[in-house]
Amino acid sequence: MDISGLLTSAGINTGFCLVAFALYSVLRKQPSNASVYFGQRLAQLRAKRNDHFSFDRFVPSPSWIVKTWEASEEEILASGGLDAMVFLRIVVFSIRIFSIAAVICIFLVLPLNYFGKEMRHRQIPAESLDVFTIGNVKEGSQWLWAHCLALYIISFSACVLLYFEYKNITNKRLDYIVGSSLNPSQFTILVRAIPWSPEESYSDSVRNFFTNYHASSYLSHQMVYQTGAVQKLMIDAAKMYEMIKCSPSEPHFGSCLIRCGLCGGTKHSFKILSGEQESIRGGSGFVNSDLREKECGAALVFFRTRYAALVAAQVLQSPNPMIWVTDLAPEPNDVYWKNLCIPYRLLWIRRLLTLLASIGFMIVFVIPVTVVQGLLHLEGLQKRLPFLSGALKSKFIIRIVTGYLPSVVLVLFLYTVPPTMYLFSTIEGAISRSSRKKSACCKVLYFLIWNVFFVNVLSGKVIERLSVVSSPKDVTAQLGTAVPTQATFFMTYVLSSGWASLSFELLQPYALLCNLFYKFILRNKEDPCTLSFPYHTEIPRVLLLGFLGFTYSIMAPLILPFLLVYFFLAYLVYRNQILNVYVTMYESGGKYWPIMHNTTIFSLVLTQIIAIGVFGLKESTVASAFTIPLIILTLLFNEYCRHRFYPIFKDNAAQVLIELDRKDELCGRMEEMYKKFPKAYSQFPSTSNDLCKDIPLSHCEDRDGNTRLQDLADIKPGNLPIQSLVVRSTLEIEELNLK
Amino acid sequence: MDISGLLTSAGINTGFCLVAFALYSVLRKQPSNASVYFGQRLAQLRAKRNDHFSFDRFVPSPSWIVKTWEASEEEILASGGLDAMVFLRIVVFSIRIFSIAAVICIFLVLPLNYFGKEMRHRQIPAESLDVFTIGNVKEGSQWLWAHCLALYIISFSACVLLYFEYKNITNKRLDYIVGSSLNPSQFTILVRAIPWSPEESYSDSVRNFFTNYHASSYLSHQMVYQTGAVQKLMIDAAKMYEMIKCSPSEPHFGSCLIRCGLCGGTKHSFKILSGEQESIRGGSGFVNSDLREKECGAALVFFRTRYAALVAAQVLQSPNPMIWVTDLAPEPNDVYWKNLCIPYRLLWIRRLLTLLASIGFMIVFVIPVTVVQGLLHLEGLQKRLPFLSGALKSKFIIRIVTGYLPSVVLVLFLYTVPPTMYLFSTIEGAISRSSRKKSACCKVLYFLIWNVFFVNVLSGKVIERLSVVSSPKDVTAQLGTAVPTQATFFMTYVLSSGWASLSFELLQPYALLCNLFYKFILRNKEDPCTLSFPYHTEIPRVLLLGFLGFTYSIMAPLILPFLLVYFFLAYLVYRNQILNVYVTMYESGGKYWPIMHNTTIFSLVLTQIIAIGVFGLKESTVASAFTIPLIILTLLFNEYCRHRFYPIFKDNAAQVLIELDRKDELCGRMEEMYKKFPKAYSQFPSTSNDLCKDIPLSHCEDRDGNTRLQDLADIKPGNLPIQSLVVRSTLEIEELNLK
Repeated sequence: MDISGLLTSAGINTGFCLVAFALYSVLRKQPSNASVYFGQRLAQLRAKRNDHFSFDRFVPSPSWIVKTWEASEEEILASGGLDAMVFLRIVVFSIRIFSIAAVICIFLVLPLNYFGKEMRHRQIPAESLDVFTIGNVKEGSQWLWAHCLALYIISFSACVLLYFEYKNITNKRLDYIVGSSLNPSQFTILVRAIPWSPEESYSDSVRNFFTNYHASSYLSHQMVYQTGAVQKLMIDAAKMYEMIKCSPSEPHFGSCLIRCGLCGGTKHSFKILSGEQESIRGGSGFVNSDLREKECGAALVFFRTRYAALVAAQVLQSPNPMIWVTDLAPEPNDVYWKNLCIPYRLLWIRRLLTLLASIGFMIVFVIPVTVVQGLLHLEGLQKRLPFLSGALKSKFIIRIVTGYLPSVVLVLFLYTVPPTMYLFSTIEGAISRSSRKKSACCKVLYFLIWNVFFVNVLSGKVIERLSVVSSPKDVTAQLGTAVPTQATFFMTYVLSSGWASLSFELLQPYALLCNLFYKFILRNKEDPCTLSFPYHTEIPRVLLLGFLGFTYSIMAPLILPFLLVYFFLAYLVYRNQILNVYVTMYESGGKYWPIMHNTTIFSLVLTQIIAIGVFGLKESTVASAFTIPLIILTLLFNEYCRHRFYPIFKDNAAQVLIELDRKDELCGRMEEMYKKFPKAYSQFPSTSNDLCKDIPLSHCEDRDGNTRLQDLADIKPGNLPIQSLVVRSTLEIEELNLK
Repeated sequence: MDISGLLTSAGINTGFCLVAFALYSVLRKQPSNASVYFGQRLAQLRAKRNDHFSFDRFVPSPSWIVKTWEASEEEILASGGLDAMVFLRIVVFSIRIFSIAAVICIFLVLPLNYFGKEMRHRQIPAESLDVFTIGNVKEGSQWLWAHCLALYIISFSACVLLYFEYKNITNKRLDYIVGSSLNPSQFTILVRAIPWSPEESYSDSVRNFFTNYHASSYLSHQMVYQTGAVQKLMIDAAKMYEMIKCSPSEPHFGSCLIRCGLCGGTKHSFKILSGEQESIRGGSGFVNSDLREKECGAALVFFRTRYAALVAAQVLQSPNPMIWVTDLAPEPNDVYWKNLCIPYRLLWIRRLLTLLASIGFMIVFVIPVTVVQGLLHLEGLQKRLPFLSGALKSKFIIRIVTGYLPSVVLVLFLYTVPPTMYLFSTIEGAISRSSRKKSACCKVLYFLIWNVFFVNVLSGKVIERLSVVSSPKDVTAQLGTAVPTQATFFMTYVLSSGWASLSFELLQPYALLCNLFYKFILRNKEDPCTLSFPYHTEIPRVLLLGFLGFTYSIMAPLILPFLLVYFFLAYLVYRNQILNVYVTMYESGGKYWPIMHNTTIFSLVLTQIIAIGVFGLKESTVASAFTIPLIILTLLFNEYCRHRFYPIFKDNAAQVLIELDRKDELCGRMEEMYKKFPKAYSQFPSTSNDLCKDIPLSHCEDRDGNTRLQDLADIKPGNLPIQSLVVRSTLEIEELNLK
């Protein structure tokens, strides 16, 4: 591919972006789209909207950019939580480091590459892109020192920036822990694998165990109940009487059915909804004996102090490590109730199987990637499929095919990945929604780095040579040959996957279509479900592009300007989305940062290894040798950060929790908090009459099709306030994983 | 190599073993050798020995085998502790599994190998050993099913045996924890990285921190002091006055100097030895102000209950994870005081550097192994070094060279490995002697498996082909070709390394020579230092031979009888050594078992992977495919064990400790125990007058040359009973690492 091919690709993408941004600035002004573009604001305000018509509504304007730019960090934290802050810090870090890299590489490395070999240069537009890569430097050239220096500067700047960001995020996380001190999750642990005994119920076992071994700090507990569909229906039938009697809001049903059905669920079931009256503790009436049979071997146990809960969660309870397994409980909104009932002894099998399934999926995915590579290496393809050569003669088609299509095909295939990985993470048995998303994020990230980077780099060679890497004599040398040749592909990848995805992110075409369907075809006046931020698709994408940026920074510096544009746009777009679109129902408290940190370190080390290979191939053994200490220093830095910061992201510090406990005890706030606990965690939440209005705030999430509502099903647990049971027929909205 | 070559090797080794065993049975009867062969008994009894002469003393007899065989498990536990028990269980497990494997492989697999190809067989003694390996089976043979079946049976038996052994050892470990309930280590934690403040001493910081955050359970603490040589000498000089006044036992000095000097140390220094009088708590006299300057940022903190200590050790104390780092304290005898003073912030650097050093050492070691392989592949060597061909014409020399010499050379080189790895583990910063030994054990094990197995397998190919593995297309196929061809070498390795090492173990030539030197040349009547069991050399050796047994069981079943003989002998010899020779000063409480478990699982999985490769090469894809589920099942089993048993080896269970605490409180034993704590951990132990007699019981250990005495140096710590200071000039016996 030559410069003009690249510019064609860049032109197409820039045009597309501009159109998308303009379209967005118009669409967002339409009151009917408010639910798509202002889900966050709506959730906060629930204000009346005025639908008056004005011409201004149809004029594209950059005002949203200004508004987004002006938002302060506090606003971001308030509307998106710490996770959103972390995400934006990832983007800011990328902007900073790639600005430094771009300056160094374009003014120092690029000219050296271009004038590396004594050759007659063609006109710039017709110049092959390879001329701008390190491949154009002469063997044994003195100028490779400049590349080595650039690598040193980039690595050091990256480490310094990473250090300060990590420190900053760690402090933010500590603030977050202190700030969420009224959260019942800090007092609560999740106990799983409660041993079954014929004499007593699970609930009694829990009470006996904790009053025996944690008498001074144990407060109360709440069992987790099975949510099996058959049992649900049986209980529903038994409660039919009340259902018919007290369902006052039938007019809502029609719209609710359609809306929620579209949101995801299709299965009908009767619900028992409890009011908000006095609790009946430990009662053993009709409902309780029924409930006892539905108890799982899992419970939430409440403690008197945060420190006691932390201790109980961390210590190995029983000499048999497969029973009385304790963890800190997730926040009430964050609990993924369905997985709490999975027998603990099956969890490791599930984990191993999903691991195998993920690896299998990663391997099978190689097929489309190889096809994409076939498109890029036209000559190879033409040889193999001669009937295509007619169509491929037109110069414009060649440009489109080489410059744009391969990435588009790859991107389309890649859209299937996050839902699949999300499904795997669900099956794996995550106990909280945030940990499920985090686990999916890691899986998608590994997948992308493997399938987009390594397979492309290696399969490019497959087509060219029709043999797998022929000798592992020197892996670095192999990478050194393979990586620079793929620079062109990754430049177009940044353009198509990066830029285009931002336009899609901004426009939200899927939500927009849904909205149109509701409003104008179903004539439904309710707002459709709002979304929570899809960290498991966006973080891997941003990190992958950063990864490409590092690996190609000194090999093919032309990639850097495109990346910088991407990160600038990403900063604007994601800020806007966090402020306006996504609703934060739950968060992991900044636990995405260590993922980012490790990925960056991995990128740096890989860049350095590839550089060693390239320097070796260019017969500059001294530059090659000088890069080895850099690897060791980078690893040392990583090890330091792992000791200095990572533990805070894994466990809470005793000192912090003890001081919070003391403060609350001095204020006399503790007793008040204890009263809140039983109500905080409700597996079957008490729902007010306007069920449909509540939907945007309940767990309807994930634009990848993982639309879901919290299981609003069944009954109130026995140890908890069993209120006047209000039974209503409604819809069970099950999780639906669209692909 | 043919059968007769193998038999020559076996003959030499059998003869050597018989001579060694006979010699041992004579030598052990000589009273002058009692300290070499009965260190353990002597330590227990200190009985008078009668030196009367009898002819019986010079007749070889098998009585020691009978005595060893008759010893009960309780005796083993009493004299060797849980670690020795675990070690013997490893041997017993190996005997069991290889008995099963031998029966199956010799009656099912061996005939199939031998008659696999239609060929005219020579006479058995002249038959090449390759005829007995899987290499002799025809391609596409139906009989490969038998190999697959044998693999299934071996894997299943191994897993079943492993499960019951792990369960058994876990119960033994729980008994051990309950049994050592009077041990102060259960009440103690080690705090490192105490933050330095200009206002208060480390000791005050510790007191303030723990009275603040762990007020209810904190009892007292004891600082760790620097043991720098310069400071030591300065204090010694200041105390010279007392030194000269009260050293009543000068006559001892001569012998002590010689003996201890030989034990390891060479550096003189003055010691302060404290009597056993009343303690002066928290006094702030001359000595204390002096001590304050020598405080390290580390302390032992004593708690009121075991559970409180466990909690304090496990919970992250501070929001800065680099300060107030807590761990459970090792047992008093087990503490490695020198490493406690290492600043915590340097520990991770040390760990990374020793890791790099170990890897470097492993790589450099390839050179002798390649030379050894050169000896085995005579043809290749003769081509390269033609002047050797004259000497290599004699048939007997060829047999010796191919059958015996390579292993001997390898074994001699391998003797340098354990001391080196032990040194690395010391530098790494282990806080206890047992953890240092365990860490060295892992390092030696990785080293052996890599350098003895993989490098031999791969470098055999180096000499043959003069190219590194040419294509990684199929790693399994590569292993499948390479592994069976090396069967001969490993058979001789079992004979030379295995059998011969047992003879050496029994005879203890090094200790015997030392003893002779003391007794008959130096005319010293004291017993030289007794040894503690060198787990870090013996466990890797046994595990390596087990590893070879698994990988070759179906490839070359002829290895199994030799292995079985080895394990039977090992059972006898090690039982004898544990009962009679080694003194147990400290132990890890069975923590070697998980290492054994993981190694066995690794061996099984590797065997299965190699089998897949071999079946593939033999064009039996169905057998190959049938082996894949076996790998998955083995991994699942391992994962189960990791969840079911491993946590017990990592942490103590709260339930067990709480119940121990209650029992002690009911007995009213607690107060009594609290009094013992300050005396239990003494960095500078109070030594009675007969310093020399105490040596066998202090920390003079490790026959690999790591002879050492606990640093009997310096002064009593400030917070502890500072008794009437008795200053004596004696020898500082520093750690000496012979190579």
